[in-house]
Amino acid sequence: MKESEHDRHRWLHDDLSPDITMLYSIRRVLYSGQSKYQSIEIVDTGSFGVCLVLDGKIQSSESDEFIYHESLVHPVMLAHPAPERVFIAGGGEGATLREVLSHKSVKKAVMVDIDEQVVDVCRRFLPSFHQNSFNDPRAELLFADARKFLEDKRQEFDVIIIDLADPLEDSPSRLLYTLEFYQLVMRSLRPDGIVVVQSESAGWADLQGFVAIVNTLRHVFPIVRPYQVHIPSFVDMWGFASASRVLDLEQLTAEEVDRRISSRVSRELKAYDGLSHQSMLLFPRHIRRRIEMAERIITDSSPISVY
Amino acid sequence: MKESEHDRHRWLHDDLSPDITMLYSIRRVLYSGQSKYQSIEIVDTGSFGVCLVLDGKIQSSESDEFIYHESLVHPVMLAHPAPERVFIAGGGEGATLREVLSHKSVKKAVMVDIDEQVVDVCRRFLPSFHQNSFNDPRAELLFADARKFLEDKRQEFDVIIIDLADPLEDSPSRLLYTLEFYQLVMRSLRPDGIVVVQSESAGWADLQGFVAIVNTLRHVFPIVRPYQVHIPSFVDMWGFASASRVLDLEQLTAEEVDRRISSRVSRELKAYDGLSHQSMLLFPRHIRRRIEMAERIITDSSPISVY
Amino acid sequence: MKESEHDRHRWLHDDLSPDITMLYSIRRVLYSGQSKYQSIEIVDTGSFGVCLVLDGKIQSSESDEFIYHESLVHPVMLAHPAPERVFIAGGGEGATLREVLSHKSVKKAVMVDIDEQVVDVCRRFLPSFHQNSFNDPRAELLFADARKFLEDKRQEFDVIIIDLADPLEDSPSRLLYTLEFYQLVMRSLRPDGIVVVQSESAGWADLQGFVAIVNTLRHVFPIVRPYQVHIPSFVDMWGFASASRVLDLEQLTAEEVDRRISSRVSRELKAYDGLSHQSMLLFPRHIRRRIEMAERIITDSSPISVY
Amino acid sequence: MKESEHDRHRWLHDDLSPDITMLYSIRRVLYSGQSKYQSIEIVDTGSFGVCLVLDGKIQSSESDEFIYHESLVHPVMLAHPAPERVFIAGGGEGATLREVLSHKSVKKAVMVDIDEQVVDVCRRFLPSFHQNSFNDPRAELLFADARKFLEDKRQEFDVIIIDLADPLEDSPSRLLYTLEFYQLVMRSLRPDGIVVVQSESAGWADLQGFVAIVNTLRHVFPIVRPYQVHIPSFVDMWGFASASRVLDLEQLTAEEVDRRISSRVSRELKAYDGLSHQSMLLFPRHIRRRIEMAERIITDSSPISVY
Repeated sequence: MKESEHDRHRWLHDDLSPDITMLYSIRRVLYSGQSKYQSIEIVDTGSFGVCLVLDGKIQSSESDEFIYHESLVHPVMLAHPAPERVFIAGGGEGATLREVLSHKSVKKAVMVDIDEQVVDVCRRFLPSFHQNSFNDPRAELLFADARKFLEDKRQEFDVIIIDLADPLEDSPSRLLYTLEFYQLVMRSLRPDGIVVVQSESAGWADLQGFVAIVNTLRHVFPIVRPYQVHIPSFVDMWGFASASRVLDLEQLTAEEVDRRISSRVSRELKAYDGLSHQSMLLFPRHIRRRIEMAERIITDSSPISVY
Repeated sequence: MKESEHDRHRWLHDDLSPDITMLYSIRRVLYSGQSKYQSIEIVDTGSFGVCLVLDGKIQSSESDEFIYHESLVHPVMLAHPAPERVFIAGGGEGATLREVLSHKSVKKAVMVDIDEQVVDVCRRFLPSFHQNSFNDPRAELLFADARKFLEDKRQEFDVIIIDLADPLEDSPSRLLYTLEFYQLVMRSLRPDGIVVVQSESAGWADLQGFVAIVNTLRHVFPIVRPYQVHIPSFVDMWGFASASRVLDLEQLTAEEVDRRISSRVSRELKAYDGLSHQSMLLFPRHIRRRIEMAERIITDSSPISVY
Repeated sequence: MKESEHDRHRWLHDDLSPDITMLYSIRRVLYSGQSKYQSIEIVDTGSFGVCLVLDGKIQSSESDEFIYHESLVHPVMLAHPAPERVFIAGGGEGATLREVLSHKSVKKAVMVDIDEQVVDVCRRFLPSFHQNSFNDPRAELLFADARKFLEDKRQEFDVIIIDLADPLEDSPSRLLYTLEFYQLVMRSLRPDGIVVVQSESAGWADLQGFVAIVNTLRHVFPIVRPYQVHIPSFVDMWGFASASRVLDLEQLTAEEVDRRISSRVSRELKAYDGLSHQSMLLFPRHIRRRIEMAERIITDSSPISVY
Repeated sequence: MKESEHDRHRWLHDDLSPDITMLYSIRRVLYSGQSKYQSIEIVDTGSFGVCLVLDGKIQSSESDEFIYHESLVHPVMLAHPAPERVFIAGGGEGATLREVLSHKSVKKAVMVDIDEQVVDVCRRFLPSFHQNSFNDPRAELLFADARKFLEDKRQEFDVIIIDLADPLEDSPSRLLYTLEFYQLVMRSLRPDGIVVVQSESAGWADLQGFVAIVNTLRHVFPIVRPYQVHIPSFVDMWGFASASRVLDLEQLTAEEVDRRISSRVSRELKAYDGLSHQSMLLFPRHIRRRIEMAERIITDSSPISVY
């Protein structure tokens, strides 16, 4: 069948700001629905293949989710000497779980996502993302508010991975980006535990969300390491931050990262290795300054929202 | 006066590929014309301030041109022990010249741009870019084809900076991205000279241009170092490559970079320093692989063109 | 659930010309597929409700299909003294059939559409369009090339309704807009029969398709009446043309139209009546001129295609 | 020079509603400024040539302004037996004045526009629109609020032409679309005078502005005639309404219109003649109903605003 220019007639419009909009051509809409919390779509884009789209924002794409998920999970997992109990807040696609379970030391991975419909849709439409990780006997999947879960259960984890959707205005995720939540996270970590937070855009002229998250973590944890990686389908640098009482990503040399990957991880990684680890931690001068100058502390009474 | 949403009614559409388009809101069009070679516009965008736009593509923006120009110029200038004679191919905005002239060792900077109209427009509308560098007595500005200039003049330079527009189809710049041109560049360099080439997108799913340029340089020069930096207004990672018979960006430690900046550069840098230098040279694993696997050699008879 | 501006993130882009594009927000995609002939979508738009979209072009919308279908069907049906046998070429939504069957005189309505999948999708998703007309015992539905059908069957009809998709480049409908096809149509009409042809945009600066169709009909039929009506979801005036050996839309007064509607049509009409009939036939001066000046004759060897 | 697809990189975005946006390619921006009242641009579009754009909305285009201006001016001018004194509210381009002055009977045409800068820009950039009408000795041009002018001056006119920009939210024109203003207009007309009001979209699903204006006029004048014409560059049917104590557009036959044009108008008309006159007055059934059902009366305390 022809694939002429007239076939590019449906487009996903992503307003990155009032002054910038990205248009992604849509080949096919595989699923489109509305949960209690957000609109959910599975869209096959011309540029990045099949994507999960929540509230109109691409969450991850078939073509480069490996960059996001490897970068989110492995630095903290490898910084920990032998993570057994892991907690995932969010992570609906199941790809974060997939990376966590690739660590041979893991005995239990508890994933708490608020939106059962998102997980159902991902299980059905994104098999290459979750790769049946939900069926792994070490995985425990719960549908609840992650903050409430941690408050109620008072469990302790070696690693906590905060993989939540953007704190859009009115989004339920907003109260999971606050000082109070990070204090709860610290209480839920074992003494030598470590947390990683997906931390919004780190390359954009407007870094407000990223630097505020890093700064807020610094008011809770003694060691905080922001890092960043380029995600093509986000058309941006993406920020993360690890936080811990004792563990520090900067202590890991490239060689040590490579050594730990080969002894502890059961699958081949595509984006992450020792040199990638180094590169993630190095920010250009102008971004370093912005991080240093951060003053905002995000609290329950004054949460952030991104555009 | 109100600045309501209705005021965002003019947009710059940049087709990054057939499947992705960026829309930048336009506040004002300061200049719009057509030279012998390309369409030229000076546009005030809502997101990145005043931009030079050639053939519909943003070349540099007021808000982040410092990242591009510092990253292009300083690594090779500082890798060289004491650059006196510098050649710039392209560089119409005058900002590359500005960075070159900030090196105290420089005695002569020859800039050859094919399009006099671009330079005239930039002189008039982009004073913060060139900062009157064109009037510096060390600067020599010529309007000619840079390749032809190097063929005819047989001068030798310490540093050559290739700062050309994208090799769009039918663009005159296409023959300045070939093996034959890079051989000419090598002949125009002193034995311990070094060249840097702006090398197109380095973060996009489609890295073909970047890896082909790097690979082609490797067939000419014994030492080639690709590097990359995130440019917000390009919504992408941007690639560069240094090439030399003897000089190697990787030999410079962060400390040495910082030392040389403070002793040799007369202006304060915003994006580039020792840590930035390190970060530029470190590619994530999946990009490293793509660079290693490159096979294409760009030649006069088979030039590249980007979208 | 909130219905914020962030929810308008999927858009249908319809390139009306290289210089004009319409964007329609998409609320939901109810169906998306590809038949042997074209891409088929059922899209719920924010502006016009549920629409049938073929090859990226809105064919008809829930909110104003009544204007298109009433204007297509009733003028010729009422110009005929007592239409019994009606032929419909195309008409996949079933709404043309619905209007035809509302005429009490009709004994047989043969509808021939080339694309069974379009009709299946419309039956399933557009009940308000077809209103079960396909189940009317007077209806006969066939999936075939309408031209081939008329060539083979040599039946005679009182009214023929040509309700085809735009003759896009490479579209199978292109040979159903030619002199040779209209000659076949004339042979398939009874001596006092009449045909109507949906005839593309009649209001746009570029009227080429419309005036060429009218001119081509005039080389076959002694009486041709172009007419036009505004269709909001097409953001345009839309052209039609009746053609006959003896019947003339201009002979019908507004009063006679109203009389015939009330005695012969079994459903209430919303867009069409005597005054609407008059208004359709009156073109503004500049359009009349363009119709008069038409020279092009569309033939099998030189078919038209619209953008 | 090439005129490739890459040249269509600047677009005018016109949000017709939250769910529909028109994109017009921009060839060149001839002027761009901001007056006390609105943003003003002169834009050369790929589809409609040079356009006046106020607050992001195309006001009139080189390619079809003749349709708008002839349809606005001539019906009321010809309905009047011999108009000598004409008042124009708005009309910045000078094209309304041009049409008024083509009537040989006219002795005085007073044009009052609030925005001197708009008129200056039009005089400079739109010579084909005004055709030097501002220099005609019968023309009197004033920069003032038209409502205030009529209140203060208490002059009487044969014809009043209300040619104002859309009543956008916060626009100064909003109080010139109210019952109180139309009462003032009636007082400013001679007993056998007639007024015409440009009355917003008449073809769109959302006819609210149009039917409210017509209804409001009906609460002031005994004879009100809505009419409509298709304007390609507005991608819509456009509404007008005449109002008078005694003059009625419907009394003019097509023949009488043609007769009066040939005896009273000194220039050849392109869009308007007797048949066009008839066609303007005939609305399709569904629009007639909407006009009949109108209830809203626009008042100073409850003005309308269009999107």
